[in-house]
Order: sequence, then structure tokens, then C-alpha cells
Amino acid sequence: MLHWLAMSASYLSRRMNHIDTSQIRRMFDLAAKLDSPINLSIGQPHFDTPDSVVEAARKALREKKTAYSQTQGILPLRERLSQKFQEVNGFSASAENILVTSGVASVLQLLYLTTVDPDDEVLLVEPSFLIYRGLSSFFGARMRTIPEDFSASDLENLKFDRLKLILFSSPSNPTGRILSEDQVRALGNLADRTGALLCSDEIYEIFDYDGKFKSAAAIYPNAVTMMGFSKSYSMTGMRLAAVSGPEALIRAMTTLQQYTIVCAPTPNQWAGIAALDTDMTDYVADYRKRRDFMVNELKDHYRFGPPDGAFYLFAEVPEDALKFVQRGIDEHQLLVVPGSIFTDRGNWIRISYAANDETLERGVKALRAMAGA
Amino acid sequence: MLHWLAMSASYLSRRMNHIDTSQIRRMFDLAAKLDSPINLSIGQPHFDTPDSVVEAARKALREKKTAYSQTQGILPLRERLSQKFQEVNGFSASAENILVTSGVASVLQLLYLTTVDPDDEVLLVEPSFLIYRGLSSFFGARMRTIPEDFSASDLENLKFDRLKLILFSSPSNPTGRILSEDQVRALGNLADRTGALLCSDEIYEIFDYDGKFKSAAAIYPNAVTMMGFSKSYSMTGMRLAAVSGPEALIRAMTTLQQYTIVCAPTPNQWAGIAALDTDMTDYVADYRKRRDFMVNELKDHYRFGPPDGAFYLFAEVPEDALKFVQRGIDEHQLLVVPGSIFTDRGNWIRISYAANDETLERGVKALRAMAGA
Repeated sequence: MLHWLAMSASYLSRRMNHIDTSQIRRMFDLAAKLDSPINLSIGQPHFDTPDSVVEAARKALREKKTAYSQTQGILPLRERLSQKFQEVNGFSASAENILVTSGVASVLQLLYLTTVDPDDEVLLVEPSFLIYRGLSSFFGARMRTIPEDFSASDLENLKFDRLKLILFSSPSNPTGRILSEDQVRALGNLADRTGALLCSDEIYEIFDYDGKFKSAAAIYPNAVTMMGFSKSYSMTGMRLAAVSGPEALIRAMTTLQQYTIVCAPTPNQWAGIAALDTDMTDYVADYRKRRDFMVNELKDHYRFGPPDGAFYLFAEVPEDALKFVQRGIDEHQLLVVPGSIFTDRGNWIRISYAANDETLERGVKALRAMAGA
Repeated sequence: MLHWLAMSASYLSRRMNHIDTSQIRRMFDLAAKLDSPINLSIGQPHFDTPDSVVEAARKALREKKTAYSQTQGILPLRERLSQKFQEVNGFSASAENILVTSGVASVLQLLYLTTVDPDDEVLLVEPSFLIYRGLSSFFGARMRTIPEDFSASDLENLKFDRLKLILFSSPSNPTGRILSEDQVRALGNLADRTGALLCSDEIYEIFDYDGKFKSAAAIYPNAVTMMGFSKSYSMTGMRLAAVSGPEALIRAMTTLQQYTIVCAPTPNQWAGIAALDTDMTDYVADYRKRRDFMVNELKDHYRFGPPDGAFYLFAEVPEDALKFVQRGIDEHQLLVVPGSIFTDRGNWIRISYAANDETLERGVKALRAMAGA
């Protein structure tokens, strides 16, 4: 047995040397040992999936809609998405040009596999969602970054050899920032200049507290729109997302999906239609209150960028981020995410306010104490 | 717009040149035009998902078990799988060493990504499931094959440079053959000799009509077992499968899953437990009758290998397979799958008997007519 374990790594691909989740795993291991944690590390809404969504999935199951769907996704969902993109997001995407898949992570997987060869360049707006960084490294891409407060002129002098993807989330995970229309337009110009794809991860689109969000495809029509159900409708475990964009890309991703997940879970595709028909206004208003509470309680103690949306603050801390996080656990049972998984620059933590009132109040108290207030 | 379409392929990865689904797509397009097709091309059971499975998913949904699960899958399902592997399949796999994922296609995706570098070798027992061939080509592996009726001595003289995977399905899609214990043992010896992983796709395990099936891991303990719920419980659209094998591999696949599908659909994981508790004996007995009917009706007209399991016959045809398939559509509205997507050797068709009595009777009549009977 020792023999086997010792030789076991020999069959792993070289790619596996470029993926490391030990920081996150260590955090989870530590968290599991706490008896009354203040958990501000969560990346999903703290409210339940709306009944309308759950009941639609239950109905599909009762009707035994449990077989493979078309690879591309059921037509009624793609038609409903086409309508939503037009009415809510202000851009056109036909049902034929939308692919339904199993979460935005699956979109990203398909995106990298269909476009990125080793040594191709990927430009990330940073700080950036950890999966962008992970996949760039895993697939041997050269990762380039620009800070999220870039201006149009910052992009003009950038030189690239083989830029394939320009990738960002807005509202941002981890910072909550919503890129301005000028910024998105500048990224679109860069895409045109380089032949790269502009890829907009809009999974947090409804968590837009000050009316700043506009879909990238409404500004730059060739944008790749990555739309997720997970956060908006608190259905992270139902694994449903969609992507629209240039025809050749959607066709390539659909072809590849026959070899990866085959199709998104069928009953949940029916639930997706119900989700798009569900009014989430009250949920978003509740999260706006949470955002306001956190900002007011913490703004005199921490520096953070504009908390426009999503449900995160990205706060600068006065010491090494991992040390700060460790101290939070040791002294307060406080769980936040170290910023080092989102950026190499500076010392930051991601504070999630997807939590109930009591947790937020305890969290604020701990964070203020840690800042020396 | 024309400008965009013309230049659109420039962003696609080189990998995309090595994937081609046009044959299958053309078949589906032709099939969609038939008004009363005899469909013997289906790769999933024709019976409904058992109520017990559907009700378990519905219960999980009602209880709002709709958030992310652990990446590796919910512990109760992994524990139940561990018990099943011991009691039904005769090998040991701890719950810690089982990964739950979104269909066997997802297992294969993770397997190739975690193990296969460009120019590594992959040995397929042929004819082989089309996804093995597709992924081998897509990831730049050198594909080697051995015919499924190989003997142990056939393997002894094979030379490899960098063999990473030995991959087969038994019962086989597309042939229905179940490999003998001697054959599996010989493949295990080859794995030991080369350092490759022996990967056994057991998605058709319950469709074993003559009691010939034995899990590879019960013969060769280091085997990678790929277990699927889709076919056994007719839940192809619920996207659920599991994999066990060497610890370092399962750990690597679990790490990567954080970047691909994150987790299998959570409500369906609960349904998986109910599936494993569901007695499928009657369903299998029904499929055995279908197998016997097809074999008796066709054996004097077509040559095919031992139809041990799954729900396919792989029959030799007296002309080019694509021409035969086209003639079936034109003359009889008959749909079967051309063997050319499973093997480069000879002219074959895959006949599925996952269909109702009337379809099978019409199918037999058409096939006999086409053989000139």
C-alpha cells in the first residue's frame, strides 16, 4: 500500500501542479472546529430558495421530466432567457444562441476548453473570482491583470501577443464593485483591437443596490454573457446557468458539452423558468439594508472600494491577510476569506454580508475590535 | 456581422479542431424529420424513473436542500455507495475515497484533466464508448486500441511509452459484451507493468442478463470504478454518478471539481440514496426478455458478439455503415447508430433494445428486410 501511495502521483497530469486549494481547505478545516462561529465567509445567499422555484422542480419531477434534455438545454428555458436578456438586460440573444449548463463554473470550464491554448493570454480585472485565476493557471494561460479601478486610457498602451479572454465579474466577487459603462466600453474596444472575447460574469446581476449595473452585451454586443441562477434565486445546489455570445463560441461550447456534462439537470431547467418569473425585489431590498448596515458600521475602521453590489465588502487590513484571518478565528471565532486568493496585491479580506442580523452584528463587533476601535 | 462571423474561429482553441460531432448531429437532424420513426438508437432506458427516486428528490427540494453540497458529495450518499460497493460489488471503498459528480461524462472529464497530458497514451478496449474516443482526441492523447475479444497473451507484447489510462465499459456500450475475469485481470497486470490506471466504466452494471458481471475493483483492487445512476435507474437527466479509486486520483479529481461543476445537483444526491435502495430486479428481467427477443429474431440474419448486457446489439452489416443507416431511414424510418463512431474497424451498427414491444417488433421486421431475409 505504501508502495502504491508513493508512486501514485506518477499518473497525474502536469496541469495538476498548477492548482492549489490548500488555503481554502485549511480555512474550512479550521472553521469546522468552531462551536459558535461568526461566519462572514459564505458565497451564497442566506435566504431559502423561493417556493415558486422549488415547486417547479418538484412538478417536473412528478411529471418524470428526468431524462436527458437537448445538450443545449430545453427550448422553453432558452426562449424565456432570450426574453429576459431583451427585456431586463437590454440586448438581443436568440434561443438558438443560448447554452444552458450546470452553473457558471461549468460555463467557465467550457469557455477555457474551447478557447484557451497553453501560453495564450487571459486578462483578468482584479481582484478576481478565484476560479478565473485557478483555471488560467490550470490551462497554462499567461495571466495578465488590470486593477478594477482602471480608466479607458490605462488600456490603450497595453500590448498583447495572443489575448484570448478578457474576463471580469460585475457586480464583482470579491469586491462588490460594478464596472462603469465607460470601463466596459473600453474593454470592448480592447477586445476589438486584439480579437479577444469580452466575457462578463453577471451572476450577481440582481444584487445591484444603486441602479448602476448594465449588462456588458448592452454596451458591447459581441460580449459573452455568463448568467447564473445560483445567487439570484439562492439555488446554488441546483446547478443551473446560461451563456450567450458569438455564434461560433456558443456552437463550440455546445459541441463540447456533449462530452462534459451532457446537459444541465433537466428538472432544474424547468425550475429556471419559474425563477425568471419570480419577483426578487424584496430580497434585494433586504440585502441593500445589510449592505448599508455593514458599510455604516465599518467605514470608519476599514478602507474598501465602492460596495455597489453582490454581497461582499473587500476591506484592507493592517497586517498580512492570512494572519488577520487566523487572528479572527482565534480571538473571535470570526470567519472571513483572505484576499490572497483573489489578488496578489496588498492585504485584504472578503467580508460577506449574506448572513442574518445577529451574525452581522456579532461580525461588526469583532471586526471593529480587530481594527483597534 | 459577416466580418465577425468570418473572423470568429480565430479565438477557438486548437483542441476544438479535434472534436467532431457532425455524424451524430446529422443523424438527429434526419431523425427529426420522420413522422413515425422506429427508434432503435436510444442510449437510455425506456422505462420511467422509479417513483422512489423521484419522491426522494421531491422531498429534498421541499426541505430546501438546494444549496451547494460538499464538493465531494453529501456524506450519506457516499456512505451508502461505500456499503453498495462492498455488498453488491465485492470491493472496499471508504466514503472518504468516493467522489460524487454529475454523470459518468463528468467523471471522464475529471479523469482526463487530472491525468492525461498531450502525447500520453490511452488504451481503449474497442469498440468503445464515443466519449472515450472524443476526449482522447480532444486532449491530444495517443489513442491505442485492443479488440474486446483480446486474450491475456495479446497484452503481453504490447509496448507503451507513457500509458496513463486503460479504459473500457463492461457491460459494453456499444456491444453489450461483459469482459471475462481473466481479461480484467490481464488488464490489471498491464496497469501494474506500465503504471497506468485501469478505469472501469460500470454504468450498465445491473443490465447483466447471464450473471457474468464482476466489478473490476473486485478483481484488481487499484481499479478506478466509474459508477453511474443514469442507466440503472433511468435518471439520465438527473446527472448523478460516482467514482472511487486510488486515493491520490480521487483527491485530485475532488480538487478539480471545485473548478468545474462545484458539486453534483444537491437534491438529486439525496435521490441517489433512494435509488440504491430500490429493487430493479423486475426491470432487468424485462430487459432480459427484450434481449432474448432481439437475439432470437436477428441471429440468423446478422452477426454480433455475445450480447451479455447493457441494452445493445452491435451487428455487422454487409455495406458501409453510414450507407446502411441512411438506407434504414429512407426505406423503413429505422434509426440505428452507425458503428463508425465507436470503432474504425469494419461495418457495424448499434441496435438499442431500450424500446417498447411494438417498436422492437417493427424494428426486427425492418432489419430482417434490410438483411434480405
